[in-house]
Amino acid sequence: VSELRRDPITGRSVIIAPERPFPRTTPVTAGGRDACPFCEGRESIAGRELLAWRPSGSAANGPDWQVRVVPNRVPVLRVESDFAETSDVLLQSLGGLGANEVVIESPRHDASFASMKADDIARVLWVWRERMRDLHRDIRLKSFLVVKSVGRTAGAMLDHPHSQLIALPLVPQHLEDELFGAAAYYRTGRRCAFCDLIAEEKEARLRIVGGDGHTLAVMPFAARVPFETWVLPQAHGAMFEDASDATLAAVAERVRDVVMRLDRVLVSPPYNLLLHTAPRGEMARTCYHWHFEIIPRLESVPGLAWDGGIYINPVAPEEAARAMRAVDSLRA
Amino acid sequence: VSELRRDPITGRSVIIAPERPFPRTTPVTAGGRDACPFCEGRESIAGRELLAWRPSGSAANGPDWQVRVVPNRVPVLRVESDFAETSDVLLQSLGGLGANEVVIESPRHDASFASMKADDIARVLWVWRERMRDLHRDIRLKSFLVVKSVGRTAGAMLDHPHSQLIALPLVPQHLEDELFGAAAYYRTGRRCAFCDLIAEEKEARLRIVGGDGHTLAVMPFAARVPFETWVLPQAHGAMFEDASDATLAAVAERVRDVVMRLDRVLVSPPYNLLLHTAPRGEMARTCYHWHFEIIPRLESVPGLAWDGGIYINPVAPEEAARAMRAVDSLRA
Repeated sequence: VSELRRDPITGRSVIIAPERPFPRTTPVTAGGRDACPFCEGRESIAGRELLAWRPSGSAANGPDWQVRVVPNRVPVLRVESDFAETSDVLLQSLGGLGANEVVIESPRHDASFASMKADDIARVLWVWRERMRDLHRDIRLKSFLVVKSVGRTAGAMLDHPHSQLIALPLVPQHLEDELFGAAAYYRTGRRCAFCDLIAEEKEARLRIVGGDGHTLAVMPFAARVPFETWVLPQAHGAMFEDASDATLAAVAERVRDVVMRLDRVLVSPPYNLLLHTAPRGEMARTCYHWHFEIIPRLESVPGLAWDGGIYINPVAPEEAARAMRAVDSLRA
Repeated sequence: VSELRRDPITGRSVIIAPERPFPRTTPVTAGGRDACPFCEGRESIAGRELLAWRPSGSAANGPDWQVRVVPNRVPVLRVESDFAETSDVLLQSLGGLGANEVVIESPRHDASFASMKADDIARVLWVWRERMRDLHRDIRLKSFLVVKSVGRTAGAMLDHPHSQLIALPLVPQHLEDELFGAAAYYRTGRRCAFCDLIAEEKEARLRIVGGDGHTLAVMPFAARVPFETWVLPQAHGAMFEDASDATLAAVAERVRDVVMRLDRVLVSPPYNLLLHTAPRGEMARTCYHWHFEIIPRLESVPGLAWDGGIYINPVAPEEAARAMRAVDSLRA
């Protein structure tokens, strides 16, 4: 049974999940196509669907779908768990309450965000949003994590394109830090830090990867790893759940373009795509701005950066952005 | 030239270090003994020493030493750099000011903290402390990171036992979070959270790995990875620089014991050993408590945990501590 614990000093969240496989020093080879539980035709192995995009009106849990959501078979958190907060001041645990779903992003084993059409990616975003809206009805769930992992180094256990959706009964530390910083900025000038950042980056033109009237793909000034890229909607919005279909379509095209460029420049690197979205509540509405962070995982995280202390990045984001923009000329 | 940048929203620190080698997807094999610049007899390759433990009174920069400190040949930060803070509110950079030294922990290529004597490890701790005391004279340097990396997965580029000492002109986010939590706890009861934690863990006896009258090795309640272990001096002290020789000797024996047990239980895992010590200033004196954190690196950091958001740990610290304590019976 899982348990969600908070570090007494830093507030870091850790899920103690004894049902998960014990990690091995030797990497497990990701399963091949023959054993893949996510391929079309193996719906009963993947599990009963919570939601699917079935354009042809095909029956649930059968083939002929484009995106499909199933519960994680070894969930790190469960909706049925008790919300049993311990009373100890130093050693706080929240039981294993939460939700953990797997989004199978394509029926095709070898699809990728670089090869998929923007419409296909928009459907994945649509599914994330719909599942989050549904889980929102459980008021015990406070925040969401959506993580897409590509490649073993990025933590993917299967090659078939998929992502994890996790709903938490608390706000994790990294999001709390972000909210705190955004709120402090807001208090000084009544402005969203992300909106100002978008304006400043568009003016500077040093770190921009791409954009249109609705979205911006930009490398952050303090990029933690080479080619870290953020994709932001230009219009202010704290919560991904509130994004319109039109915004999702524009963001999907921007994400596709970034991943395609990464694949060209870094030769299909492993990467994580992480959704950053405000937790439940009014506080963050004015000062937070949802976005995606794309983190290429070119090497194992070094000791110094292990706990988010200090990152050492050998590639300035200005140089990386230049290389990403140059992909256009290669296509001509 | 390096540059220390702060993320505008979270305050995370990143060193942009274009002189560092560009990371590769394929891991570099750590150099063998024949090419090792840290072995005894190759002192001129390792660099001119800043400090060395030379019991025989041998001459500087020659052989016959037990611990030796040299500047990092490709430093991520430099003492000579300008402290040129940028004025932009959102995009802050501190130039590349700082220090980056390498501590060669033994003249022997295949030594390890598991096989070294406690006295040998105490000399390494002594050297860390002396270098920090010396660097403290530069008031621009605010905090220290000491990181020992063992194994490629943990970020080590060489097998020869060594550690990195980094002095920073700011307090990194993970330490700020820790200080903030410790200060909040102190305000409620005028007590050090770590001192209370030590008392509570000694009472519970669930997560203890080992200890004596002066030190405690304990697995944290919210352990982030399997077999994460903290080594704390039992007497309150915020700064490692102020530790006595006797404390260093006791802590060295405790660290040796933990690494020996990890080597037995996990079969010589890659790991990081990180020093957590208070930054310059009076604020932390009462509420912070220096300690070591030992982080086995059994697999690459998964996407969810990438930025310190949520860690998923498949081994409860109570189970891991039990396995570590059982090593005693194996020795009989």
